[in-house]
Parts: sequence; structure tokens; C-alpha cells
Amino acid sequence: VINAGKSQHNEDQACCEVVFVERRPSPRGQLPSREGVGELDGVRAGVCVQVGTKGFYFHYWALFDGHAGSGAAVLSSKRLHLHICDQLRDLVDILQDPSPPPICLPHDARASTVEPSQVPLAEDDGEVPNDAVPRFHLEKVVSHESLVIGAIENAFKHMDDQIEQERASQHLSGGCCALAAVYLMGKFYVANAGDSRAIIIRNGEIIPMSREFTPETERQRLQFLAFLRPELLGKEFTHLEFPRRIHPKELGKKMLYRDQSMSGWAYKKIEEDDLKFPLIYGEGKKARVMATIGVTRGLGDHDLRVFSSNIRIKPFLSCFPEVRVYDLTQYEHCPDDVLVLGTDGLWDVTNDKEVADVVMEVLTSYEPNDPCRYTMVAQELVMRSRGVLKERGWRLPNDKLGSGDDISVFVVPL
Amino acid sequence: VINAGKSQHNEDQACCEVVFVERRPSPRGQLPSREGVGELDGVRAGVCVQVGTKGFYFHYWALFDGHAGSGAAVLSSKRLHLHICDQLRDLVDILQDPSPPPICLPHDARASTVEPSQVPLAEDDGEVPNDAVPRFHLEKVVSHESLVIGAIENAFKHMDDQIEQERASQHLSGGCCALAAVYLMGKFYVANAGDSRAIIIRNGEIIPMSREFTPETERQRLQFLAFLRPELLGKEFTHLEFPRRIHPKELGKKMLYRDQSMSGWAYKKIEEDDLKFPLIYGEGKKARVMATIGVTRGLGDHDLRVFSSNIRIKPFLSCFPEVRVYDLTQYEHCPDDVLVLGTDGLWDVTNDKEVADVVMEVLTSYEPNDPCRYTMVAQELVMRSRGVLKERGWRLPNDKLGSGDDISVFVVPL
Repeated sequence: VINAGKSQHNEDQACCEVVFVERRPSPRGQLPSREGVGELDGVRAGVCVQVGTKGFYFHYWALFDGHAGSGAAVLSSKRLHLHICDQLRDLVDILQDPSPPPICLPHDARASTVEPSQVPLAEDDGEVPNDAVPRFHLEKVVSHESLVIGAIENAFKHMDDQIEQERASQHLSGGCCALAAVYLMGKFYVANAGDSRAIIIRNGEIIPMSREFTPETERQRLQFLAFLRPELLGKEFTHLEFPRRIHPKELGKKMLYRDQSMSGWAYKKIEEDDLKFPLIYGEGKKARVMATIGVTRGLGDHDLRVFSSNIRIKPFLSCFPEVRVYDLTQYEHCPDDVLVLGTDGLWDVTNDKEVADVVMEVLTSYEPNDPCRYTMVAQELVMRSRGVLKERGWRLPNDKLGSGDDISVFVVPL
Repeated sequence: VINAGKSQHNEDQACCEVVFVERRPSPRGQLPSREGVGELDGVRAGVCVQVGTKGFYFHYWALFDGHAGSGAAVLSSKRLHLHICDQLRDLVDILQDPSPPPICLPHDARASTVEPSQVPLAEDDGEVPNDAVPRFHLEKVVSHESLVIGAIENAFKHMDDQIEQERASQHLSGGCCALAAVYLMGKFYVANAGDSRAIIIRNGEIIPMSREFTPETERQRLQFLAFLRPELLGKEFTHLEFPRRIHPKELGKKMLYRDQSMSGWAYKKIEEDDLKFPLIYGEGKKARVMATIGVTRGLGDHDLRVFSSNIRIKPFLSCFPEVRVYDLTQYEHCPDDVLVLGTDGLWDVTNDKEVADVVMEVLTSYEPNDPCRYTMVAQELVMRSRGVLKERGWRLPNDKLGSGDDISVFVVPL
């Protein structure tokens, strides 16, 4: 739902697809394939498959919670799964082969930028199979799972790059949090960059599948960056955290502070530099990076600047998600076990336990084989979090204020 | 125990003390107290207390696992608790007052470095009580617990500074991991910097009280630093991780890699720069930072350099501990519930479950009120991990090799 009082447009966007990952054609004897963000040839969602084409499917659900406009969220909802597909295309054979992934692949014939001085020696013409490469005494075994994680991580990066490149021509504004669930070869990969959240409810038990990335949870990473690159603070901010603003009159007194190395607090004598505005300021939903943004990961925001200043926020934001893996084959599941994805519009007013209760309550009122039952759960979760319009605004059943935000929920049966 | 085959000297050091924290005398009307590392006047361990002196006690156990010499470990074992005491001295009144700690303290009269331009205005002469300071709309509440955590964190920093300053005159070499448990006002604060470990065993349940800081667990922090400050790598290392060394012949091929933003792996085309040695290399106990050191937090190591090079390791090491808190008042404890602190000499060969089994086994063979029973557990843990000298070296009961390292264990009844 769009919260009516706030905006005409929904800044939450969503996508649900079955995507076929087609092995990238061998480059031998072909023209070099075009590369570059935005050109994702061979990547199609839900298309029919050529007979004999090698590849696999993944299932995909994603939520994009936009801010300062819906442009980044709209583009991401149309493209992120294609970037994931594109990253997986080189892995089609490797992921379907049960032996450990090769550490090194043969020469990429499309790679034409190798300088003459870098051309391998004659006896190694690029056709040598991987196991003919001399072994070193140490070699890490990399799992298939971690290749999928790496593919999703880099897909988020490419999505962010695409937003950067198209933002001028497409008039894209703002940024978005992104939460994506990929079901591939028996495993759920839940990738989160922002403050949306995912939980699994299995046999009544709540299993968190994400954590939120906010100025509070990422304080030390941001302070560390500001400490190493003070020029990013533009002489207006300090990397230290204080429990409140400091008044110039308080110079010379001792005040509680934290730096990038501390999780506890200590007193320091207030100096001139401490009067600057703190990089991280505020608590809970009100915490902000440089008084500007309340999430620290996501896509877009390339033009975001501190109000009436030229200081860029983007260097402090990360487009990389944390990816958690849930192996469906490791557990028995019943029809009431679900994965719930929600934007912060849900979680701000409905906690994990309440969500689990609604799931249980609604699912038991439908037959286990009724395909509507999961949709009804999602609808109920959204409606409860929005509340009912009364004279004093939108109210929850407990008479508290409903969510003031757009609300989006996926309920995925396991 | 000292592992006989390895060294004549024990690089493990330990300390166990009851420390009285005496409130620092008010500076009013006194000479400015001398400041500086190494001068810890008024800080005494286990001394008798003047009548009327205000303060409190803390109990303290710590293990220091030295490397490249025992100097840093010896000095730390003699001084770290005094630094903790020194940090706590300013907090004596605050920690004993149940109301939330003040955000800002009145002027420190000893602080004589305030410039005339910084002198507060006349109406604020430094005697204004904290609550007279104008309030801002946001003010974070800081807990007593987080002040103790901050005190311990800064004590580790001062200890590290002291090693740096005294290393030349005292001929101190090397560094050490530090694991310290502070019992204060009903809570255990377990501070860890390195690869020693602490667990609580309560009613047979294992509760981890630390995590290890190694090149593997801190890979992304180190890669992030190297990415932002490439000059620290001295042109000989790359911040990227590869699963093995790359042969120059492999230029242009694709190899698995991870950067500071990734937890998964992906393929990249090998470039000239990738032939440098990786910042983080090796697995498990063999993982190293710049091929040199296998722990990423601790005290000392100020002179540590990459072998036959001038590249310093210290910028990548952190002296700050992670502090975990266990509130003793929240649980009922029986005489068999203990906190176990051990250096990696213990944990490399004896896992948590085996330690818990030994605790149970030994404690049940003594009367619950026999004070020796905890010492006997510690002794048994050390002896089992060392093993028995046979023709083929020191062997564990399962005939595997015993620990090749010094082994130290504290068993603390809860």
C-alpha cells in the first residue's frame, strides 16, 4: 500500500520472476560480445528455452524501497534480476558440475586488452586445462555457494553502476534499499542492502534472513572511512560520535564520545573540532549520516548531497548486499513454513513475533492446498501495518499510529 | 605449560588480581597531576584502602600470548590491569550513582590548554552543574555498562602506547594477544584482542564470550584499509584475495578473487597487479597478513616488518578488544558453572565440547566446596592439550599430536 497521507506515488517497487540463465555462448570463432552496463543480451526473464540450450532457472523475489523519488527503485525492479542472470551466465557449467569450481579458467578469447609483454609464454597458449597449471602448496577450496553469493554481490554493483550511467538521460532521482531472494538449486540466497528485512518462519520458529544496514549498525565502518579520508567530511563534520550536539560554550568540558574503534563510551575534553556536526547522529529511525540519510546501503543516490552544501553522501553508502543462505534440502517443510520479505513500512509497526502470529492465524483459516492463502497473509500483514483511517489518522488495532510509510510484503511458501 | 620442543621461555603470560579503583582526587586546589603513559600514580593493585577513601574493587584475570619474544606479554601482564584501573578512576562516582551517566562533565581544572578564544563565556564558568547546560532535542542515553566497556577499550590503547614508548629502553620485542576478564559490580566484562578464547559453561551449556581476530575473520577490515591506503602495501602486495598464488604465465586468464566488499567469490581477468602477493593469504592457522603474522589484534608489534622489507605490519593490527558482557545477576549459578579463558595452545587441540566435558568430569570428582577443584580442572585441561611424550612426540589420548604451543588456562567459578 501507498500511505495516502504521504505521497501520490509508491516509492516501494517489487519484482517476482522466474529467470532462465542461458550459458553464455563460447566466444571462440565468434565476434567479441558487446560488453557494458545496460546491454544484457541473452538475458531474458521467463522466456521459452531453445531445445538443447544449456542453462538453469532461478526464482526471484525482490523489494525496492525508494527514497527521494521512485526512479532508482523502478529501474532496479526492472533490471536487478537481469544483472544477477548476467553474472550467473559464466557459471552455468561450473554450478552444474558437482566437483569443486576451478580456481583458474582458461584464457578468455574476448579479452583483447592483454599487452604484448603480458602474453603468456608459448607453451601456455590458453588451451591448457586448469589441472595442468602448476599447483602451489596452498589452494583454497571455494564452494559453489560462494560463487552464487559473489555473483549476486557483483550484480548489485552493476545495477548501481547502471543507475549512475542512466540517471541523467532517464531523469532518475533518488536511491532505494534492495532486498532480493534468489532460489537456485535447492537454496535460498537472501541479499539485503538497506533496512528492509526478511525472516523465515518454520514450524513457528523465527529465523532472521537479513540484518539492517543503518547509520547505527554501520557506525564503525563509516567512522573508519571518515577517519582515513577526512576530506570526505568537507570540514563541516567530525568522525567522532557524541550523544548530543555540543554547544560552543562547552569547550574545555568533558563529554562522552565514541570513535571508529570503540563500542563503549568514554569522556574526552571538548576541542574546537568537536563542535562540528557528527558524521553519525540521532537514534533509531532518526539516525542519519551527515544529517541526511537513514540507510547506509542501497542502490542509487549518486547525486545525494548534504543540504545546501557540496558534500557528497555516496562515498559512505555501500551498494553491496549481505547475502544469507538457507538450504531448503536440510529441513523438512510443511505448507505453513514461509519466507517473509518486507520493507520497513511493515517492520516499523509489526515485529517478528506479530508477523509470525498473523502467518499462523491466516494460514490456518485456509485449506493447505489453497494457493490464495499466502497472498491473503501478505494482504493481512500490509493492512494491519497500515491500520484503519479514523478521525485521528491511521490507527493500528492497539490504537497506535499505523506505518507512515509505503508497505510491501512478499510471503513465499517454502 | 611451555611446549618443551619449541622454546626455553614461556611466551604465554598471565595475571590475576583484585584491584582497588580509588577515586581520582579532585584537582581543585591541587597541583596538576602528572599525566603520561607509565605514570599511574594512585593506581595500586590489592593495596589496603585509606579509611574514607571512595572507590570500588574489580577482579581481574588475563592471558597474554606473546609472539616474537615475550617482552610485550610480560609488560602487559604487569600493567594492563593498572591501565584499566586508571581509566575507571574518573568513573568512580558515576558508576556508583544509579542515575544515567552525565553526557557532559564540568570543566576539568587540570585542563590548562584551552586557548583564550575558547574560554567559555562569563555566565558559564565551569561550575554550572550538568543539568543547567541547555538541552538539545536529541540526547542519547549512555549506560554504565558502556562506560566500563569504553574504559577497557581505552586501557588496551594506553597499554599499547606504553609498549611503544618503552620498547627501546626496556628492550621489549614482539607483541601479544590479550584476553582479559574484569568482574565489576555484578558483571563480567570479557575483552579479547587476538586468538585466545573465553567460554562460559553454565549448566552444561556453552556460551562463547569472545571471538577470534585473525586474517580470516578480519579480512574485509584489512582489505578496506589497504584499498583506501594502498601505500601501506609498499607495491609488493595486492589488497585482493586469491585462492592461491598466481603464476606470471596465467596473465589474462580468469581467476577467483574477493575484494573488501565481497564475502562470495567471482572470476576476474588476471592483470599485472594481481601477480603481487595477496595481503591476506593462507587458510586457518596458516592464514597470514602480508605473509607475516597470523593474528590481527593485540598489543605491541610496533617494529614488525615484512621479511627483508621495510613494510610495516602495525597499521593493519588493532589494539582494540571486543568486549562482551555477561550479567551474573541475570542467572542462577551452581558450583559447576565456570568461565574458562585459554590461549590458542588450548583451543587448537581441545574444542569447546571437550573442554566442557573435562570441566564436568573433574568437578564431579571433587566436593563442591573444595577450593582446589577449579585449579584441578585448569591443570587437567593444560595436560590433556599438551599430551604425553612418546617416541613420536607429544601425543593426545587419541594419538594425535598435542599442542605445539604454550598453553595457559584460567578456570573461574561463577
